[in-house]
Amino acid sequence: MSAHQAMLSPDELEAALRAVGAARYHNLHPFHARLHGGKARRSEVQAWALNRYCYQSMIPIKDATVLTRIGDSAMRREWRHRIEDHDGQAAGDGGIERWLKLTDSLGFSRDYVISTQGILPATRFAVEAYVHFCAEKSLLEAIASSLTELFSPQIISDRVSGMLAHYDYVSRDTLAYFAARPVQARRDSDFALAYVKTHATTPQTQALAIKALEFKCDVLWVQLDALWGAYVEGHLPPGVWDPAALHEGQMRQKVAL
Amino acid sequence: MSAHQAMLSPDELEAALRAVGAARYHNLHPFHARLHGGKARRSEVQAWALNRYCYQSMIPIKDATVLTRIGDSAMRREWRHRIEDHDGQAAGDGGIERWLKLTDSLGFSRDYVISTQGILPATRFAVEAYVHFCAEKSLLEAIASSLTELFSPQIISDRVSGMLAHYDYVSRDTLAYFAARPVQARRDSDFALAYVKTHATTPQTQALAIKALEFKCDVLWVQLDALWGAYVEGHLPPGVWDPAALHEGQMRQKVAL
Repeated sequence: MSAHQAMLSPDELEAALRAVGAARYHNLHPFHARLHGGKARRSEVQAWALNRYCYQSMIPIKDATVLTRIGDSAMRREWRHRIEDHDGQAAGDGGIERWLKLTDSLGFSRDYVISTQGILPATRFAVEAYVHFCAEKSLLEAIASSLTELFSPQIISDRVSGMLAHYDYVSRDTLAYFAARPVQARRDSDFALAYVKTHATTPQTQALAIKALEFKCDVLWVQLDALWGAYVEGHLPPGVWDPAALHEGQMRQKVAL
Repeated sequence: MSAHQAMLSPDELEAALRAVGAARYHNLHPFHARLHGGKARRSEVQAWALNRYCYQSMIPIKDATVLTRIGDSAMRREWRHRIEDHDGQAAGDGGIERWLKLTDSLGFSRDYVISTQGILPATRFAVEAYVHFCAEKSLLEAIASSLTELFSPQIISDRVSGMLAHYDYVSRDTLAYFAARPVQARRDSDFALAYVKTHATTPQTQALAIKALEFKCDVLWVQLDALWGAYVEGHLPPGVWDPAALHEGQMRQKVAL
């Protein structure tokens, strides 16, 4: 995308954004096919859930960062939904809590998961890059970077049906996180897409919005690349969770792996 | 490391920092052995140089970030050496320019290298994490994170002798970057190590210094992991430099790969 490109109509811009997802969303990553096709070892499912907790847990921080950039009360109320979805209205509620039910079911101790001490450095760097992006780039770019949610209902549907079919230690209950997400994601991405279509009205800002979505696809892709290298290929970076060498406090009880 | 550990003497702290390098420095990564042992394809050497340019080019930004945290003129003068080493005293001088001579010799166009548009997202996220770390953590941690240079003279010696022995397209001239580094790194790491030994005088700050060096080892390790996945295993993330599908402007001329 160059700044010399022609101006796009709002619908052409939407098509360009959807084309980014078609080319770069992480449903195209081989780890996705492996996880949902029943080919992942239990240790890979565990590593995926452990690492993705780091991403999930930073989403409200990311959204609070976006909130700090919004000057308008009505729009802040709208964006605040995202924080409420993840943090809930009371203890035991919300998306992060539902993610912890998944890591519970895979045998991890909550303290270990919440500490994020065993996660892959690439996961941490990608997640932090997302938060910094939303602090440092324009509000338009921060909002455009959320648009991967346009593509999430399909991946969630693949994930839930695939994992339920293939892994006997996974249940609708442990995947409760995903039951709530498609409706939330649809509402959120409708709002964000309308915002971007309304506010990206020059070739330059349209190019920035598209680049922001590419960046966010990279944030997701890097996480699956890192899982692949460490837990499929077996090249564990120093200091990360090692399913073959469990230490005290990592798991809820001694589990057979 | 826990905050309840015993206080270390300065020499014990130095030993603990050197132990981090012995366990986690990127000379232990298989990409290092492959590159310097003559097993890397030309495309892997190219990808390494292209990606590492992103790291090299951000070092003066990182060091300027550290400069903003130093209240003392004498210490800023000392730290400023690092920026001078990388940016030089005049056009055509300095470590970044010498790195570009390496990417020149591997066929890349300077515009393409400097744009960083073909680098691996994991490289970019790791490099940005380093800059943000130095902006957001304490000055002690920022300085401790530079201490990977304690370990660099050995890796540089392995790299230069191994690459000269194994790749006929590499020469002392194209590796000029590395000729200057051991003396600079020794001076810089002597200063940083003395600073950390003098200022990390509680169990808590000693633990933070050790964690900062672990973090920095992760920054380097992630870059080699990403090169391995993309260019050794062949799992190219979307949008990165693809040696099999070169586009206009990437290379200085049409080169046989």
